Amino acid sequence: MSVSPPPVPASGGPVPTDALADLAAASRILVAQGVVDGFGHVSMRHPAAPDRYFMARSIAPALVTVDDLIEYDLDSNPVNANGRGSFLERFIHGQIYHARPDVNAVVHSHSPSVIPFGLVDVPMQAAFHNAAFLAAGVPVFNIAEKFGATDMLVGNNEKGVALCEVMGDHDVVLMRAHGSAACGPTLQAAVFRAVYTEVNARVLHYTVALGKGAPMAFLSPEEGRLADAVNQTAGMRAWNLWRTQVRAEFGW
Amino acid sequence: MSVSPPPVPASGGPVPTDALADLAAASRILVAQGVVDGFGHVSMRHPAAPDRYFMARSIAPALVTVDDLIEYDLDSNPVNANGRGSFLERFIHGQIYHARPDVNAVVHSHSPSVIPFGLVDVPMQAAFHNAAFLAAGVPVFNIAEKFGATDMLVGNNEKGVALCEVMGDHDVVLMRAHGSAACGPTLQAAVFRAVYTEVNARVLHYTVALGKGAPMAFLSPEEGRLADAVNQTAGMRAWNLWRTQVRAEFGW
Amino acid sequence: MSVSPPPVPASGGPVPTDALADLAAASRILVAQGVVDGFGHVSMRHPAAPDRYFMARSIAPALVTVDDLIEYDLDSNPVNANGRGSFLERFIHGQIYHARPDVNAVVHSHSPSVIPFGLVDVPMQAAFHNAAFLAAGVPVFNIAEKFGATDMLVGNNEKGVALCEVMGDHDVVLMRAHGSAACGPTLQAAVFRAVYTEVNARVLHYTVALGKGAPMAFLSPEEGRLADAVNQTAGMRAWNLWRTQVRAEFGW
Amino acid sequence: MSVSPPPVPASGGPVPTDALADLAAASRILVAQGVVDGFGHVSMRHPAAPDRYFMARSIAPALVTVDDLIEYDLDSNPVNANGRGSFLERFIHGQIYHARPDVNAVVHSHSPSVIPFGLVDVPMQAAFHNAAFLAAGVPVFNIAEKFGATDMLVGNNEKGVALCEVMGDHDVVLMRAHGSAACGPTLQAAVFRAVYTEVNARVLHYTVALGKGAPMAFLSPEEGRLADAVNQTAGMRAWNLWRTQVRAEFGW
Repeated sequence: MSVSPPPVPASGGPVPTDALADLAAASRILVAQGVVDGFGHVSMRHPAAPDRYFMARSIAPALVTVDDLIEYDLDSNPVNANGRGSFLERFIHGQIYHARPDVNAVVHSHSPSVIPFGLVDVPMQAAFHNAAFLAAGVPVFNIAEKFGATDMLVGNNEKGVALCEVMGDHDVVLMRAHGSAACGPTLQAAVFRAVYTEVNARVLHYTVALGKGAPMAFLSPEEGRLADAVNQTAGMRAWNLWRTQVRAEFGW
Repeated sequence: MSVSPPPVPASGGPVPTDALADLAAASRILVAQGVVDGFGHVSMRHPAAPDRYFMARSIAPALVTVDDLIEYDLDSNPVNANGRGSFLERFIHGQIYHARPDVNAVVHSHSPSVIPFGLVDVPMQAAFHNAAFLAAGVPVFNIAEKFGATDMLVGNNEKGVALCEVMGDHDVVLMRAHGSAACGPTLQAAVFRAVYTEVNARVLHYTVALGKGAPMAFLSPEEGRLADAVNQTAGMRAWNLWRTQVRAEFGW
Repeated sequence: MSVSPPPVPASGGPVPTDALADLAAASRILVAQGVVDGFGHVSMRHPAAPDRYFMARSIAPALVTVDDLIEYDLDSNPVNANGRGSFLERFIHGQIYHARPDVNAVVHSHSPSVIPFGLVDVPMQAAFHNAAFLAAGVPVFNIAEKFGATDMLVGNNEKGVALCEVMGDHDVVLMRAHGSAACGPTLQAAVFRAVYTEVNARVLHYTVALGKGAPMAFLSPEEGRLADAVNQTAGMRAWNLWRTQVRAEFGW
Repeated sequence: MSVSPPPVPASGGPVPTDALADLAAASRILVAQGVVDGFGHVSMRHPAAPDRYFMARSIAPALVTVDDLIEYDLDSNPVNANGRGSFLERFIHGQIYHARPDVNAVVHSHSPSVIPFGLVDVPMQAAFHNAAFLAAGVPVFNIAEKFGATDMLVGNNEKGVALCEVMGDHDVVLMRAHGSAACGPTLQAAVFRAVYTEVNARVLHYTVALGKGAPMAFLSPEEGRLADAVNQTAGMRAWNLWRTQVRAEFGW
């Protein structure tokens, strides 16, 4: 019995060149900030068609250019693959866009400081105002709970749905023995959160070791809400720096 | 009822170009030394008018040039904004200059090694002679004590005053779940202290973990006083290096 | 009584230039990824003659070019030394090729994060999917058990045999107070494993400190098997990045 | 009452240009390897006159060139200062050359990983073969024991003598709340030891945290002796790399 390939979805229409350049730049930024290495990916919802998103073909983040971007529907079928390979874990992105209308960009990464919080029962808390988006809590997705022993990858829509159920309305979800996903209302916000999830994890490692069990005065949820609002405007200073650095290094 | 904007204060008068270039360079130096990232700022009291200070417009420290510098009065009203945006937390600087006539430069930063000392009840001590300025003690400002749940920022003069009350006559003050401020009699001394507060924090993390509760032979206050005097002259070797590096990289 | 030098073995025959360039590039990649410093080496079995292998002359990994590669038999006698010096520890490589027909490349290194797992009785486990190859266990070779007090080096075939006995059919073996060896079916896989052994070690240090004795949800052996299969194909994305970076920096 | 300056000692005679270039390069190497920052210094005994040594004028190590080198006698009086300032702590060097005829080069540094071993009562041990020279033990000099509260600097010959008494015949001595000094029979060996003291300290921090009090299988003194002999020949591979890197970056 032959299985026919899924039908190729229609495009959501053209997107401003600048927006696609920003997405490719985001990939380079995440490398420069130590969030991704040879692995990891960032995506952006189609600005005019909420049921489509853009993401690079299967390639290391440091090599992504605009020409590597593929458009997908929310089941993560490519619109315009043209023979280019897709990331095995694009379903993380498609299903978050499906479950979360408020989210317009997603970063998936395996940064070394963050992974430990998915391995032991110590909650990731917000250690400083730049990481305020973490103060509402950071859930941990253990793929084995629903799927038993796997290759650990969110490699189909069913696993993507399960990830989203654990994520709920949080901005970051940890993935046991794997990594994390960070999302935001804009590409800039998602990148900011991916970067400061990593920085915050480093601060937490220092703090837990220093405190030796003593109380730790992290951001309260209310402080987190108030500080996060500021980050979404004043916090864009960091994006402006990073985008400037990509332009200076690569000319785009 | 309309609220009229505060009157624009008069300038303290012209300042030597070299001094302003040093201030812009200080911003780049703090980036290169890992004290600031996309956030953080350094200011300098007007050399001829003690009731004025200079600080960059709201921009990432790695991008600051002399053209980005704004003059402020000690209530942090800009003298010459010309449409340029100001940092939300300039009140840290203005109020320290108000409270501390001996201080002529201030650095505010959120370096990852330093933040933990504002989260747990472990005092920051001076682990080696270059950090001698810490041996007199490092107080922690918890903004919530006086202001309840906030966005954590020292975003007005009232909060700046409260910070200064906790700081007292120390050279460095930690800010809970936020960062720190370091100051000195000269720009060079303030930058030196910001850098070695960060280095000292890394040494302390190693030391506390290594010692597992055993006694730690930090600098005594008297040793701190004696060593700090040397740092203020011989310690300028580091500034000379850093300033040379900025010149080599940027040509100014 | 004079001892005649061992006879010079015959060459296994010519090897494609690209394969030798990849081996020299692997050496540079291991430097760039922090796996080796002035010391450490990588080798590759002769693609057409399983009883021969290639490895650089005794030189720091960052300086290796194709011209530095020497061919050896599996007793680690050089085929074409032409006066070039050999690494004292080439016997690690030769004996692994002898004992393990499935292995076609070996990396030996002393990276600071990995050494501790050879010093204390804490097993190196697989903290995330990229390190899946560790989930089957990582044995520790203590040279003193069989050889007493030595210079710690695997400096002859007898010590290489002893190392292989401890290694068994694992992909990585730790060496007490010394370093480790990682191997794989291809050069690319061996380099990948050397790099992610180092990254995984860093994750473990964070995790053990964070967990303070609590259970840690590492990869199970079955998860390791499933994830490792993916790494051997999708994982080559990292090699492609690293190889591209060597080409961009050195032109080969 | 006026105090006449000490008489200017005679020079030990000319030194090959290459040797002086190596000494200046050593300074740059120590920066590149993270052993020194804006502070720290390296010296070399005069190859033909054992009662003279060379060391840079008071300048950051990253800026040292051959023109900055000053010749001193073993009381650390400059032979040819010509108005150039001397390091306050040159007495560390002069007194070690006085006390230790076997030593021909000395490095003084304050690297963050090493300082903690002078602050708590945990001995620095040799975690791997490259740090074999530490296996004979590393004493700690506490300047306060003999001199009370000071500026922590070894700023005269009396303090230098006291340091040497604690150092004895060891290759490295730690200085409480300050840093360390490493020495060797050649410039290359002293630099090697300074670098691997720092690397070894990082390995120890990881190991102590990982072991949580369990036994740690460090190098025994006998293993240290055997491995150190190899380092003094094969270990020069690292110096060759570092010297090549200085040549490539600076052209000398």
